[in-house]
Amino acid sequence: MADDLSELPDAVEADYRLERSVISAVSAALEAMDTDAIDAVLDPLHPADIADLLEQISSGQRRALLGLWSMGIDGEILSELDENLREEVIGYLPEGVLSEAVREMESDDVVDLVEDLEDDQQELILGALKHADRVAVELALSYPEYSAGRLMQRELVVAPEHWSVGQTIDFLRRDETLPEQFYHVILVDPGYHPTGYVTLGKLLGSPRATKLTKIMEESFRTIPVTQAEEDVAYAFNQYHLISAPVVDENDRLVGVITIDDAMIVLDDEAEEDILRLAGVSGEESLSDRTLETVRQRLPWLGVNLFTAILASVVISQFEAILAQIVALAVLMPIVASMGGNAGTQSLTVAVRALATKDLTGSNVWRVVRREATAGLINGMIFAVVMGAVGVIWFGTPMLAVVIAVAMVVNMVVAALAGILIPIGLEKLGVDPALASGAFVTTVTDVVGFFAFLGLAAILLI
Amino acid sequence: MADDLSELPDAVEADYRLERSVISAVSAALEAMDTDAIDAVLDPLHPADIADLLEQISSGQRRALLGLWSMGIDGEILSELDENLREEVIGYLPEGVLSEAVREMESDDVVDLVEDLEDDQQELILGALKHADRVAVELALSYPEYSAGRLMQRELVVAPEHWSVGQTIDFLRRDETLPEQFYHVILVDPGYHPTGYVTLGKLLGSPRATKLTKIMEESFRTIPVTQAEEDVAYAFNQYHLISAPVVDENDRLVGVITIDDAMIVLDDEAEEDILRLAGVSGEESLSDRTLETVRQRLPWLGVNLFTAILASVVISQFEAILAQIVALAVLMPIVASMGGNAGTQSLTVAVRALATKDLTGSNVWRVVRREATAGLINGMIFAVVMGAVGVIWFGTPMLAVVIAVAMVVNMVVAALAGILIPIGLEKLGVDPALASGAFVTTVTDVVGFFAFLGLAAILLI
Repeated sequence: MADDLSELPDAVEADYRLERSVISAVSAALEAMDTDAIDAVLDPLHPADIADLLEQISSGQRRALLGLWSMGIDGEILSELDENLREEVIGYLPEGVLSEAVREMESDDVVDLVEDLEDDQQELILGALKHADRVAVELALSYPEYSAGRLMQRELVVAPEHWSVGQTIDFLRRDETLPEQFYHVILVDPGYHPTGYVTLGKLLGSPRATKLTKIMEESFRTIPVTQAEEDVAYAFNQYHLISAPVVDENDRLVGVITIDDAMIVLDDEAEEDILRLAGVSGEESLSDRTLETVRQRLPWLGVNLFTAILASVVISQFEAILAQIVALAVLMPIVASMGGNAGTQSLTVAVRALATKDLTGSNVWRVVRREATAGLINGMIFAVVMGAVGVIWFGTPMLAVVIAVAMVVNMVVAALAGILIPIGLEKLGVDPALASGAFVTTVTDVVGFFAFLGLAAILLI
Repeated sequence: MADDLSELPDAVEADYRLERSVISAVSAALEAMDTDAIDAVLDPLHPADIADLLEQISSGQRRALLGLWSMGIDGEILSELDENLREEVIGYLPEGVLSEAVREMESDDVVDLVEDLEDDQQELILGALKHADRVAVELALSYPEYSAGRLMQRELVVAPEHWSVGQTIDFLRRDETLPEQFYHVILVDPGYHPTGYVTLGKLLGSPRATKLTKIMEESFRTIPVTQAEEDVAYAFNQYHLISAPVVDENDRLVGVITIDDAMIVLDDEAEEDILRLAGVSGEESLSDRTLETVRQRLPWLGVNLFTAILASVVISQFEAILAQIVALAVLMPIVASMGGNAGTQSLTVAVRALATKDLTGSNVWRVVRREATAGLINGMIFAVVMGAVGVIWFGTPMLAVVIAVAMVVNMVVAALAGILIPIGLEKLGVDPALASGAFVTTVTDVVGFFAFLGLAAILLI
């Protein structure tokens, strides 16, 4: 039956948000310890929605739910669960439920599930698998973390390149172990090297006698098993791939990656960039406990305290003039703040352009020149505005000149730091999203205070 | 032939970045006005890579390339091109080339191409289409921007729900207008309402006599034609959809959306959030000219200047004590800076959780409590550190107490502002990524300076 969303308004809202009433119903059923009521609410839900529900309830409710409804947890729900919650949830599950759940999962999902678990939980899950599956999962785990080898599934649909459409369809009808989802038949030569692929649409639309080589796609791309998963996701997005064969160092076919897995990686990478740019660890999750949150936020705040003290040291060099002209203390945060914002703008554009491989050796100097010029123009615009404000507020034309010049200087420096620092970090092999912010704001604070107070010391005394 | 990337190292690098040598070769060929050399370099490239190349060369080179090589530009390259460059590129193309390019595109790609163009360019392209295609594109344009109706393609593969596998395969073999890519056959009832779908894998793996209803997928989701595209992308990601039928207000099938389009939307939405959080318009692109960059960055810098002046007004209320104790001017940016950073952390987590629909009415208060508590704990940690620094640096214990207390106050306020402001903006229908930053840093600056200087005025005199 169709579970058309417009006909089932009681599970998720029109924008696919989990209905609040679902969560209230589960909370009520948990309080009454009413297993049947929990069944009635959760059974119609998609595993992804059940996983969301587990993330949104409190940890006490989670424990109660898993106690009462552990038989409801299957492999699909475990796959959907946020990484940070898996360990907790697996810990609550009876061994039998866990074994059954993992035995029904595909190999790439099991890999995804076990790779971040502690050794004893990992052993528990590997032990529950059938021998062949265990070997497949352990092989996948032997590839580097975040590599194509971890991402691929080993369930493949291949055909010798000399086959016809009819032979292939007959083969598919006989094969009882076809994967749940597949989109292409991969053609291989006798050495098991992939040589092309045929879409299922073409296979279905062509006469039985047609040779597969006649209908294979013009271009196809193989992915090395050691390729970084972010580059795999990039390739799917760039070349609109639906699935791609993965090959080992001898170009032999070892697995296949499908677009739905690439989409998840792409989403995770963007998420990681967003959080890292704000100084939050890319692994932070909404279901973390308070102390975990404190721990995730602490390092960046520590770095920021250090850079803020550095800026204060710069200010302290000008104590004499600050004591004479208090207006300087009033105005000085403006220059630093404008520089910080302009720097963050440039830096964010640069970090994203590096991530999407749009900023390259070919255009880097043109982009740097553009950023510097844009910084100069915006700096001059705000210098005029702020100069006017300075004159009106404090009635000292020279003070207006000082703030205007400092503004221009700091905004050009901000633009340059915003683009050059991420490029430099990338060259050093450091994720620019992770560290650029700290460096850029340090530069804009230090330069902002130094330019403003230094000019004041020269011009106002 | 396979264009396995490991065998073609001269086009793109191992991480799919466009080889710098390709761009140098094109630059050289442009200088020599050597059309054959341009052909030789560009012909083997994927349209997406040619589009990237157009984005990375300078606007002068772009103009020269399009003059010399306009016959090389086809519909696929136009589709891949960054939105900001399309108008420019289309302007350089001879009418004949443009007409041929758009005539070979699928309806959803034409819609994507024309929707942001000026009226005269739009009319030029619509005029080049065959009548039926023009009607289809104009119908799509009648749906709201960023809706499923704009995203869907109208090329469909449907079968009556009572058909067998054999009937369906025979029908597909006869049909000469099958779309280039399709993954499912949609089952419809006599009223053209979709009732389910069959994957091509199942169709290929089942005997001819099997009824389609026997092998149709258990759950499927239809998408209302007016649904926002970001919700469509969310549904694809959440439910691992590969394609989904789109229905009108009477639940009749009108189109289909495929995962590759959803992936692009998901990527665009994340990109927009990242840029907006940094105060950059979501439409900014690396190939923008300098003045466009200035224009994109100016509004947020203007807002920031306003809030920075607000903070200065707060400081100016304490001119008397600042004139007496210069150490206050030295230390005051630290409190504001730490608050700003802590607020940005909370705010970014909140904005992302809202975008991924993880922050809901059910867990909002638990998350607010967690943020406030985490802010309090981090505030106390840095209060102790900064208090110690204050004593060592200035030797005034009371000054250390002032900065420590102000730090705790500002970091708790920052955490609360960081979560409550995005939630409030979302409730008001404003994109929280767009405006939260300005509000949060205003709060942390104002509270930071006020708490620190206010406490100093009470305790230090």
